[in-house]
Amino acid sequence: MVWIAPSILSADFSKLGADVAEVEQGGADWLHVDVMDGHFVPNISFGAPIMRSIAPLTKLPLDVHLMIENPEDYIAEFAKAGASVITVHAEACVHLHRVVHLIKEHGVQAGVALNPGTPVSAIREVLEDLDLVLIMTVNPGFGGQAFIERTVHKIRETRELADSLGMHDLRIEVDGGISADTAGKVVAAGADVLVAGSAVYGASDRAEAIRVIRESAERGE
Amino acid sequence: MVWIAPSILSADFSKLGADVAEVEQGGADWLHVDVMDGHFVPNISFGAPIMRSIAPLTKLPLDVHLMIENPEDYIAEFAKAGASVITVHAEACVHLHRVVHLIKEHGVQAGVALNPGTPVSAIREVLEDLDLVLIMTVNPGFGGQAFIERTVHKIRETRELADSLGMHDLRIEVDGGISADTAGKVVAAGADVLVAGSAVYGASDRAEAIRVIRESAERGE
Amino acid sequence: MVWIAPSILSADFSKLGADVAEVEQGGADWLHVDVMDGHFVPNISFGAPIMRSIAPLTKLPLDVHLMIENPEDYIAEFAKAGASVITVHAEACVHLHRVVHLIKEHGVQAGVALNPGTPVSAIREVLEDLDLVLIMTVNPGFGGQAFIERTVHKIRETRELADSLGMHDLRIEVDGGISADTAGKVVAAGADVLVAGSAVYGASDRAEAIRVIRESAERGE
Amino acid sequence: MVWIAPSILSADFSKLGADVAEVEQGGADWLHVDVMDGHFVPNISFGAPIMRSIAPLTKLPLDVHLMIENPEDYIAEFAKAGASVITVHAEACVHLHRVVHLIKEHGVQAGVALNPGTPVSAIREVLEDLDLVLIMTVNPGFGGQAFIERTVHKIRETRELADSLGMHDLRIEVDGGISADTAGKVVAAGADVLVAGSAVYGASDRAEAIRVIRESAERGE
Amino acid sequence: MVWIAPSILSADFSKLGADVAEVEQGGADWLHVDVMDGHFVPNISFGAPIMRSIAPLTKLPLDVHLMIENPEDYIAEFAKAGASVITVHAEACVHLHRVVHLIKEHGVQAGVALNPGTPVSAIREVLEDLDLVLIMTVNPGFGGQAFIERTVHKIRETRELADSLGMHDLRIEVDGGISADTAGKVVAAGADVLVAGSAVYGASDRAEAIRVIRESAERGE
Amino acid sequence: MVWIAPSILSADFSKLGADVAEVEQGGADWLHVDVMDGHFVPNISFGAPIMRSIAPLTKLPLDVHLMIENPEDYIAEFAKAGASVITVHAEACVHLHRVVHLIKEHGVQAGVALNPGTPVSAIREVLEDLDLVLIMTVNPGFGGQAFIERTVHKIRETRELADSLGMHDLRIEVDGGISADTAGKVVAAGADVLVAGSAVYGASDRAEAIRVIRESAERGE
Repeated sequence: MVWIAPSILSADFSKLGADVAEVEQGGADWLHVDVMDGHFVPNISFGAPIMRSIAPLTKLPLDVHLMIENPEDYIAEFAKAGASVITVHAEACVHLHRVVHLIKEHGVQAGVALNPGTPVSAIREVLEDLDLVLIMTVNPGFGGQAFIERTVHKIRETRELADSLGMHDLRIEVDGGISADTAGKVVAAGADVLVAGSAVYGASDRAEAIRVIRESAERGE
Repeated sequence: MVWIAPSILSADFSKLGADVAEVEQGGADWLHVDVMDGHFVPNISFGAPIMRSIAPLTKLPLDVHLMIENPEDYIAEFAKAGASVITVHAEACVHLHRVVHLIKEHGVQAGVALNPGTPVSAIREVLEDLDLVLIMTVNPGFGGQAFIERTVHKIRETRELADSLGMHDLRIEVDGGISADTAGKVVAAGADVLVAGSAVYGASDRAEAIRVIRESAERGE
Repeated sequence: MVWIAPSILSADFSKLGADVAEVEQGGADWLHVDVMDGHFVPNISFGAPIMRSIAPLTKLPLDVHLMIENPEDYIAEFAKAGASVITVHAEACVHLHRVVHLIKEHGVQAGVALNPGTPVSAIREVLEDLDLVLIMTVNPGFGGQAFIERTVHKIRETRELADSLGMHDLRIEVDGGISADTAGKVVAAGADVLVAGSAVYGASDRAEAIRVIRESAERGE
Repeated sequence: MVWIAPSILSADFSKLGADVAEVEQGGADWLHVDVMDGHFVPNISFGAPIMRSIAPLTKLPLDVHLMIENPEDYIAEFAKAGASVITVHAEACVHLHRVVHLIKEHGVQAGVALNPGTPVSAIREVLEDLDLVLIMTVNPGFGGQAFIERTVHKIRETRELADSLGMHDLRIEVDGGISADTAGKVVAAGADVLVAGSAVYGASDRAEAIRVIRESAERGE
Repeated sequence: MVWIAPSILSADFSKLGADVAEVEQGGADWLHVDVMDGHFVPNISFGAPIMRSIAPLTKLPLDVHLMIENPEDYIAEFAKAGASVITVHAEACVHLHRVVHLIKEHGVQAGVALNPGTPVSAIREVLEDLDLVLIMTVNPGFGGQAFIERTVHKIRETRELADSLGMHDLRIEVDGGISADTAGKVVAAGADVLVAGSAVYGASDRAEAIRVIRESAERGE
Repeated sequence: MVWIAPSILSADFSKLGADVAEVEQGGADWLHVDVMDGHFVPNISFGAPIMRSIAPLTKLPLDVHLMIENPEDYIAEFAKAGASVITVHAEACVHLHRVVHLIKEHGVQAGVALNPGTPVSAIREVLEDLDLVLIMTVNPGFGGQAFIERTVHKIRETRELADSLGMHDLRIEVDGGISADTAGKVVAAGADVLVAGSAVYGASDRAEAIRVIRESAERGE
């Protein structure tokens, strides 16, 4: 089953509560929360204050993607703010195993994200401890970028590896350039959580946009 | 004349547009935009995406306070997003003179902020190029902190210095712990832009809160 | 043959000479010296001054484990202070090959350590130049942590790789959570130098503790 | 009254407990604990593990001098380990006021240290919150360096400033090159806590060494 | 066909134009431009100002090797200064895919370099976007170092990988210790661009030196 | 007596030896060597390799201006390459006193430079140990910028301070925007070493350019 996770980075921050409600009613499964610090990526998006504003207003699981350096310093805060999943970048963690377990100690599901240029082998040693792997299908830092075809094989490689380890519950998430055009192929390759930014929030009818992406995803190609 | 600049850091980010409209109608003069990167200060607040959402909705001048490292990398973006004033921290700038002039080259007014522990002498060499000095009356990084009495003399010192240089238009802004209790004394010391966070956004009647702060400020003590 | 290397991080620093003498007489083969800088790991343990105090008092080879950034800046100092082996972290070295050879130019044996989350492939290009590989069996930074089972396969992988290259003298060291309970399995997987911290220094009879660990290790499981 | 604070950096770390006891019995007033991280200064000395070993063994107040970056991350640990005073470097703190108050919130006295090249004005804004100012009389990072005459006027300037503010209890500490030859002049200038490293621990009779320094100090020149 | 790329790092900077002209007339195919920032490598060589002086004087393609941190900040400048190829280090790029595409957006060929200790797997995810892979055959930072034999297998591995992907135009460059003695073996392993520093500029007859290296290279062993 | 120090940053690096010879014969007193690392300033100029090429060709004192972070790591190299003066930036040195004395221990004259935004008080504690103070009259990082009038008072302040200390031999150097138009006023304010970049190397007759600047300088206004 495929889950659609609209990214609030593409929402209208002047009426975020309403925008969140709209995708919740429109069938979204998760809400993707893109935290950027202007150091790990060349952009500052937002941090916990924004998340604390919306957490009480939605029943959607909050899927926090930390595109930040030293993520270990912020895990307690995001856990407390209501995160269901916290995903850190492999490239940002010298002590990746420690950070993954720190997330889990807070009772939150743990994910690791991989930049387009980073091989799947970078998470091999922590994979069995993960709830989620996030394969970036664009370079992180901005919304609205074009899907990078070359990343699809990493989805497949991760799924095959997970299957070979009997990790049938591992969630594989993709982020960047996901729309009705690309949803099928990433799901065919093994993804089951699809972050959608402008494809949802840029649409006039967001429920319809979610429906179309989901349909395309479930058709699988 | 004293200006009141509510800080959106204390607003409700689920309905930021409405919260901004409320203080605009309630008599606010500026809107204070607190950008934090989790490196210069131990908190990530938000960046340009949030500001771009509200800029079209308000006529209030946007008063951007960059509590970030390497502010020079973000000035063009905030200028384009509609900033009227951009303030950087003296402690964050090895090339403070260059950064101040970079702000001005973008047609934006330039400010420099001082942490509570930083002496006024840190801005002496750029003072004559500034439109605004921001004297932090709490340590930056969080909303809702208590006013530090010891910072008042820096307001006075800055105002006397500005007067002695004939800089009668220099704005002196204060940020942190400003309420009806503290507004008078900072204005008496020479401040004329008052950032108010929880004192405005934490009040049930925000127009009234602004009115009370302004009244206290204008009574000067 | 298995070597036991008590870590002085677990000793009593008020009588370090006596504590070192006790493990030396108690059958220790090496003395493990855990240097932490509070940057590579979130703890400051000690540096060369402590090592210089004990070097003249013991005949045990000093096995220096640099959990520090920029280890290249400290190699000369530890070599001079009497190190027999210096081990740096793969994660701390952009120029890993250069650092390994810098250690050897000082006439000291060279090791590289791997955090639990780091794959063995990270040292593949320098392996043939090494005297020792240190597989961390806990995340570095603190004494007294629990052994991470998932690291055992890296010991095996390293040993198989070494054997396939004819590197029969390569020492494979493990560090973290080693006791009579875990010694057997790491030795069975290919380790032959066992760092023991609290399991030795936390015991009332340290010679006995070493003997028990060694026995367990040699039984191999 | 002048206090003598032997620095354990010059002690013999193989028998630190005995060395500490010797200076305690020999008349030392404080014990100076020199923490270096290899980043703020080009040397790693030791951290909290060493301090935890000696704290239970002595009644001397532990005077912790953090020559480290990001000292805010280590204050809780040293407070818990038994520090009576914690001193941070002005040059290491972007948010100096926050760090000083963080120390005090832990119930520990707060100090700020100044490198030889740093002017007294760097602490002016926090001075009234301090229990201690540490004027470095050598560049920090190593024991056994020669006293820098040019720093004496900073002692005098700090004492005069403190007196003018009615801060008659402010402790002014000096660290570096203190011996019977220099003790008089620093005390005459206003210092009242004298760190002594090699002058005490390098002496065969440490009680005598303390006595001689104290005598010289009290003679004041 | 093998290309010889003399490195201007070994030229005489007092008459660089003449030295460049000499190798151009002497049969060089490319000119290798070694940019070092003193941070990624422990040496500062030169930046764009030097390159701008020579670009107008030669028809040789300028092959820019950025041994610097944050190479993304300098790509526009070197592209504008006339680079034909820009090569960045895998070890210096958290967002390697983004940097490679940034180079290409400037209309310049893109390369990635690998330190001796870095495995070929580090570029696997971007390989198909590259025009060139640079296998360092010494540790970068200095001219005149000895060739590291152990790097040859990485040339072979890269060539085999490229061939298996049908990338028959991929240039594989080697840099460090290349001379008539080593040229043959690197070419036999698959290299086709040979950086030569002291072997060319240290020779009295540079045309002859190029000729000899090329001959050795083409003989392949 | 005023000294003119042409900056080789404005020379033609394709024939640097000739350009240096031309200003030497044209009456230059010193040669100014602008080292930039792309970290302290946003530009990489060149390092010791360029200096080593020209040192043997000129009798002019080499006046090295290190616009780099961690200058302490490069002082030995520039001293060995023939520097007569080495100037570091106050903003780049946490241990400014140590760095100044490190320069002097290499038998080289020591200078400290101040960015336009940095007050003279930043060097007060080391002034008496200096041979030279460099007042930047533009923000460092690029050639060809416009002179900042506001910096003139810092020249005057430094000269008055030096005179009051009896430091009649202290050299006060200015760098940035120096030409016949500005030379007079900086000399009138107390400068006696004038770095000239484009005003010399951009002129068709460089000897004449030096002559004109000197004349203007000596007329003092």
